Amino acid sequence: MTDKIYTSALIIIGDEILSGRTQDKNTSWIAARLNELGVRLAEVRVIPDEKEKIVETVNLLRASHDYVFTTGGIGPTHDDITASSMAAAFGVELVLNEEAYNELLSYYKDEDEITPARKKMAYIPAGGSLIKNPVSGAPGIKIENVYIMAGVPKIMQSMFEAIAPTLKGGKPMTSRSVTCDLPESVVADELGAIQARYPDISIGSYPKYQDGKFFTSLVLRGVDKLLLEQAVAEVAAMVEGCGDKNPEIV
Amino acid sequence: MTDKIYTSALIIIGDEILSGRTQDKNTSWIAARLNELGVRLAEVRVIPDEKEKIVETVNLLRASHDYVFTTGGIGPTHDDITASSMAAAFGVELVLNEEAYNELLSYYKDEDEITPARKKMAYIPAGGSLIKNPVSGAPGIKIENVYIMAGVPKIMQSMFEAIAPTLKGGKPMTSRSVTCDLPESVVADELGAIQARYPDISIGSYPKYQDGKFFTSLVLRGVDKLLLEQAVAEVAAMVEGCGDKNPEIV
Repeated sequence: MTDKIYTSALIIIGDEILSGRTQDKNTSWIAARLNELGVRLAEVRVIPDEKEKIVETVNLLRASHDYVFTTGGIGPTHDDITASSMAAAFGVELVLNEEAYNELLSYYKDEDEITPARKKMAYIPAGGSLIKNPVSGAPGIKIENVYIMAGVPKIMQSMFEAIAPTLKGGKPMTSRSVTCDLPESVVADELGAIQARYPDISIGSYPKYQDGKFFTSLVLRGVDKLLLEQAVAEVAAMVEGCGDKNPEIV
Repeated sequence: MTDKIYTSALIIIGDEILSGRTQDKNTSWIAARLNELGVRLAEVRVIPDEKEKIVETVNLLRASHDYVFTTGGIGPTHDDITASSMAAAFGVELVLNEEAYNELLSYYKDEDEITPARKKMAYIPAGGSLIKNPVSGAPGIKIENVYIMAGVPKIMQSMFEAIAPTLKGGKPMTSRSVTCDLPESVVADELGAIQARYPDISIGSYPKYQDGKFFTSLVLRGVDKLLLEQAVAEVAAMVEGCGDKNPEIV
């Protein structure tokens, strides 16, 4: 019996990424954390702040993955439409969440300070629950297998850590790499032969071009550590045979 | 008559992004360049090095956008499956491209140096044409409205600049920003009112959390520069009224 593979998708909601104004930093952080948890990140989609697109994307992905994570669009401003879009995706109403409202009250102290924009942050899709936000007044939301988080990296990260212990994963992938100062094409044929002998190890080849010279990182990933070590040894020996006597093995 | 809006999608092909090993740097660069060219980047998808997924994604997106760009997977190694996947997506064969083969010959000088792995880089989907790669032996490929580029940022950028003059775009969006040291919730209600009065200007609000303090960037985008200036002036006056007498206007 093979172990279940847990998969997930990430939806980055943000016009600012699509316009090139902001460099997304959430994908690589979430990807690395999911990897540690044994949850495979199967795809990422960056979509605009548009209700229809959010509804369509979340409904498609929540049906095909164990977990869906979203970042962005949960604040108090007019362009923060993630919560209302999620309600539409799940076919439920937005309801005032008492716990979220009390959090707002304790954050702003005075009820008069709960302006309409701030109060909006306490509305979540019916059936959802809160993901604590220790930094600002806007909580994240969990509804079924969808986790709605902030776009600001520090806040997103603290929300993710709050939910991480509740996520079920399989055996985590271990990753090793052999980096050499050869171009890809020198090692390509023999590397393909090694990959063919190790179907359970995924071997990727990543060229890098620096100061007019090519480097290649060969990255090996797998859940079986012993098998992984064998494959790493073969790749290292192959690289040495191709001309780099001192590859960097990490 | 309104001007045509040109839209595009970007497909990042790369296990290394999904595992968190590599931080994607191509999205923000391509997004910014497309914006200058008046082409709207409507969505980005990060997908694994899997043929079926590549075929499905490119066929979906090339039918719904003016342009589709892909990065990654065009080298000589076994995991470089973009060209063969594209051939499958378009229902054509991979054919040896004479120009690409001659480029390889001039790069490697000797026919004996054209190993199977290197020769693979000269095969492109039938009906496709080359995008020059001034850095290494692997060219990019254009087939219909799909532009297949390298994953290495420097190489991708030189390929993009080779095709940029051939891309048709609409009027470019101009972007301005008003940044203040107030949290979003202070400006949210009045900002929503301004957005309602300027339907042709897209106003985004981006919070930032630094050293225990909140900042908010209000980003205004539009094709009509005069209208944009008016909206910027209103937003700046609103921010001053809310308490930041000296917002940064860029």
